[in-house]
Amino acid sequence: MKTNPGRFFEDYRIGDVIRHAVPRTVSGGERALYHALYPARHALYSSDRFAQSCGLPASPLDDLIAFHVVFGKTVPDVSLNAVANLGYAEGRWLKPVWPGDTLRSESEVIGLKENSNGKSGNVYVRTRGLNQHDEVVLDYVRWVMVRKNRLDAPAPDPVVPELKKSLSASDLVIPEGLDFSDYDDALAGEPHRWGDYEIGEKIDHVDGVTIEEAEHMIATRLWQNTAKVHFDATFREDGRRLIYGGHVISMARALSFNGLANAQMIVALNGGAHANPCFAGDTVKAWSEVLDRADTPAPGVGAIRLRLVAVKQGAAPFALKGEDGKYAPEVLLDLDYWALMPK
Amino acid sequence: MKTNPGRFFEDYRIGDVIRHAVPRTVSGGERALYHALYPARHALYSSDRFAQSCGLPASPLDDLIAFHVVFGKTVPDVSLNAVANLGYAEGRWLKPVWPGDTLRSESEVIGLKENSNGKSGNVYVRTRGLNQHDEVVLDYVRWVMVRKNRLDAPAPDPVVPELKKSLSASDLVIPEGLDFSDYDDALAGEPHRWGDYEIGEKIDHVDGVTIEEAEHMIATRLWQNTAKVHFDATFREDGRRLIYGGHVISMARALSFNGLANAQMIVALNGGAHANPCFAGDTVKAWSEVLDRADTPAPGVGAIRLRLVAVKQGAAPFALKGEDGKYAPEVLLDLDYWALMPK
Amino acid sequence: MKTNPGRFFEDYRIGDVIRHAVPRTVSGGERALYHALYPARHALYSSDRFAQSCGLPASPLDDLIAFHVVFGKTVPDVSLNAVANLGYAEGRWLKPVWPGDTLRSESEVIGLKENSNGKSGNVYVRTRGLNQHDEVVLDYVRWVMVRKNRLDAPAPDPVVPELKKSLSASDLVIPEGLDFSDYDDALAGEPHRWGDYEIGEKIDHVDGVTIEEAEHMIATRLWQNTAKVHFDATFREDGRRLIYGGHVISMARALSFNGLANAQMIVALNGGAHANPCFAGDTVKAWSEVLDRADTPAPGVGAIRLRLVAVKQGAAPFALKGEDGKYAPEVLLDLDYWALMPK
Repeated sequence: MKTNPGRFFEDYRIGDVIRHAVPRTVSGGERALYHALYPARHALYSSDRFAQSCGLPASPLDDLIAFHVVFGKTVPDVSLNAVANLGYAEGRWLKPVWPGDTLRSESEVIGLKENSNGKSGNVYVRTRGLNQHDEVVLDYVRWVMVRKNRLDAPAPDPVVPELKKSLSASDLVIPEGLDFSDYDDALAGEPHRWGDYEIGEKIDHVDGVTIEEAEHMIATRLWQNTAKVHFDATFREDGRRLIYGGHVISMARALSFNGLANAQMIVALNGGAHANPCFAGDTVKAWSEVLDRADTPAPGVGAIRLRLVAVKQGAAPFALKGEDGKYAPEVLLDLDYWALMPK
Repeated sequence: MKTNPGRFFEDYRIGDVIRHAVPRTVSGGERALYHALYPARHALYSSDRFAQSCGLPASPLDDLIAFHVVFGKTVPDVSLNAVANLGYAEGRWLKPVWPGDTLRSESEVIGLKENSNGKSGNVYVRTRGLNQHDEVVLDYVRWVMVRKNRLDAPAPDPVVPELKKSLSASDLVIPEGLDFSDYDDALAGEPHRWGDYEIGEKIDHVDGVTIEEAEHMIATRLWQNTAKVHFDATFREDGRRLIYGGHVISMARALSFNGLANAQMIVALNGGAHANPCFAGDTVKAWSEVLDRADTPAPGVGAIRLRLVAVKQGAAPFALKGEDGKYAPEVLLDLDYWALMPK
Repeated sequence: MKTNPGRFFEDYRIGDVIRHAVPRTVSGGERALYHALYPARHALYSSDRFAQSCGLPASPLDDLIAFHVVFGKTVPDVSLNAVANLGYAEGRWLKPVWPGDTLRSESEVIGLKENSNGKSGNVYVRTRGLNQHDEVVLDYVRWVMVRKNRLDAPAPDPVVPELKKSLSASDLVIPEGLDFSDYDDALAGEPHRWGDYEIGEKIDHVDGVTIEEAEHMIATRLWQNTAKVHFDATFREDGRRLIYGGHVISMARALSFNGLANAQMIVALNGGAHANPCFAGDTVKAWSEVLDRADTPAPGVGAIRLRLVAVKQGAAPFALKGEDGKYAPEVLLDLDYWALMPK
């Protein structure tokens, strides 16, 4: 067999570091496509001049481009035989990614726990994205449930890593030079600043986007994530292509511009759940909740912790979970992240 | 409310200058996408070497990329609560836009006239697109009918600007250095030059493109035009997404290559009407009429004034208006512009 | 008539050299789009750093981008009135194409043979793609059946060029500097090297992609191939848009990554047949057969000759031809090419 069968649960060992394939040089082409696929308008990622007025040398690529590129490379090694994507934790953006950078990914196995049915188990990896200078630009923990291939393979000693429920403000890394002292609200598209958002406040982002098959496939391929469930309509019994969860993340984040245009930079991912699958024809909308606020040492820069929820058509206002504690069927995504905002 | 409610008729004042949000740095990525979304083939915008043989330092971005980027930024401030896009006038391209340029837009309110029903009014703005050197690259007048929010707001003194029905040849700005003396017809794809087109001549551009939802949404987002009517299939009662009028402009202009490949640069927009809405599934075709010709002081360069009409399936040959003076239902666009052509 | 009617069979003369229109400067934008439209992951075309570790100055644009750009320009002059694309031969990639290069095409008529029905004939052209230094980056022979317009035009003396059934290893041009001595299997995504593939071995590439209208039109336009049969749903009697054969070539080549990730560079095209038409909604899969292997003088570099077959849903395993020698109806493409692989 010359094709890649993927790894099964019994193929992982604690401490293994997997160097993922296909490094990628990114350019203005990836940025243009990102802005064509999502209604992305955060000014720092759109204009070199705006970014320079915020102390950066130029406009970096969107944070989620970095995330998707790094994540996409892990799919053949981590989730080809996964039955469920269970969670994210301790994600941090450590360096901006610039046009011309070359990214690669590696993942360390940090947890393993076989399920009681003996047919699958949970695999925890810490994934790092590195640039051409071997600097870590992003790292995060992800855990997935992976099938066993040889059911008689012995269960490993269970190791479940202790993960922070949320990163604290002191964990956040502020990009070198970032300075919001001369921030231009008009060009950013939003008069509300860090001090105007209250913990507990919820924002309905109002706009909606109906998703087409061509769009989510173009986006997902752009990140070299080629899991067949996203592309092959003959693969699932129901003949439907499952939309890459990251597509919903980017769509919701872009929609959140309307009300959170000043939540410019994503610096941490505390957690996230893909609550229900998304399919072409769904109309995605988003709402946010302010979970926390914290000051930072950078001039004019505050940190805001946000819950970002993506829902589809038919969702009740601010839909999240039912009385049973389960996500409402119209909820697609529940994401918890830190962003940087002008004070 | 943190989200942008848009401006209503009573929010505009004569003389107001609105600085629109989200400046944008453009690159080869935007150009590649433009050429992927439209059958654009004008050689000056395709090849650095061809552009250099015409006296320019490199191939600029397509004129309509500049238009769409500048226009897209105005939507949240000008047309979010518009009920109709009424017209364009006095549009001029003043500087080429190059990869690496950063564009922003601002609009001055130059006219206001409340409708007799007291529920809406016409707003006239002169929009300017500026580059990172604060040079105006494009300006045009646009007027839209905007809803009132507070119906009891007093009507402003009516001001209707005097607008030229057409710019004259002396108004046109020729890009610095442009020289068609060594123009290569074979590489341009067209043997017919300025002198071969007669006033009154009509050209059927023959080719047609059937439009898909994914394509018009990708294009419209690329210009950061996020008006929900283009994206959210649940927004309109009929469940259909309205295609951004600029998508039809670009499609028709690109189709006009077949017969007008030498109408290289658009330098002025005299007027335009989006005659009927366009929806996914429509097959767009185009025809042109030569309205005028004028000489220019640039070597080898003539100016040609063209009517560009986009129609959909079922249109009669050279369809335009019925005997009642109304546009035929298959007519999508009626545009009046000046272009530069080799003599 | 100002529009291009295309050439008919009687318009070609042996020895004519047609300079095709619309030169094109390519950038990172074209690369990003290519990776968004196809599941392309060959590391040499994805990462500057990986390409540098293989002795190249940077990552070139995918070989098939060069092919499509060069081919697209020939359509208005060669195949606008073609009734069938009959074959390819003697294709060679002679120079890598880099972001920033400007490509143009020219074709020499090397064969003509009228059909016995007097209504059409076969035209053979040798097409060259040239860069801004007037270096040939690609050349290949293609022959098509073209309609006659004036049925009474006399038949030319038949000339059928002698074409090699396959290029031999000594015909292959290895890019200057290419060196696979320090090749990194993990980053390339494939442990199998040149010595691991046996002549006659067949590889099922497993993955499948269901094709959407928007995607094949975006791709085809990107190469400035505007043949209406690909874009206008009202053109064919059955209301279906025919997918550009090159879209299937790129899709199949990208799918072959899974099993042939180390077949990095395409250096020759020995032949190819578009066995059956492809339409939106089809799910494309691919398989390969090793036809030959040869050593090369470049350090660590072997050559492998591959048959690449694209099939659609319903195809039997390794489907090719029936007992009657005809292609099975699910076979879309049968391509014969040479690639370079680490030894």
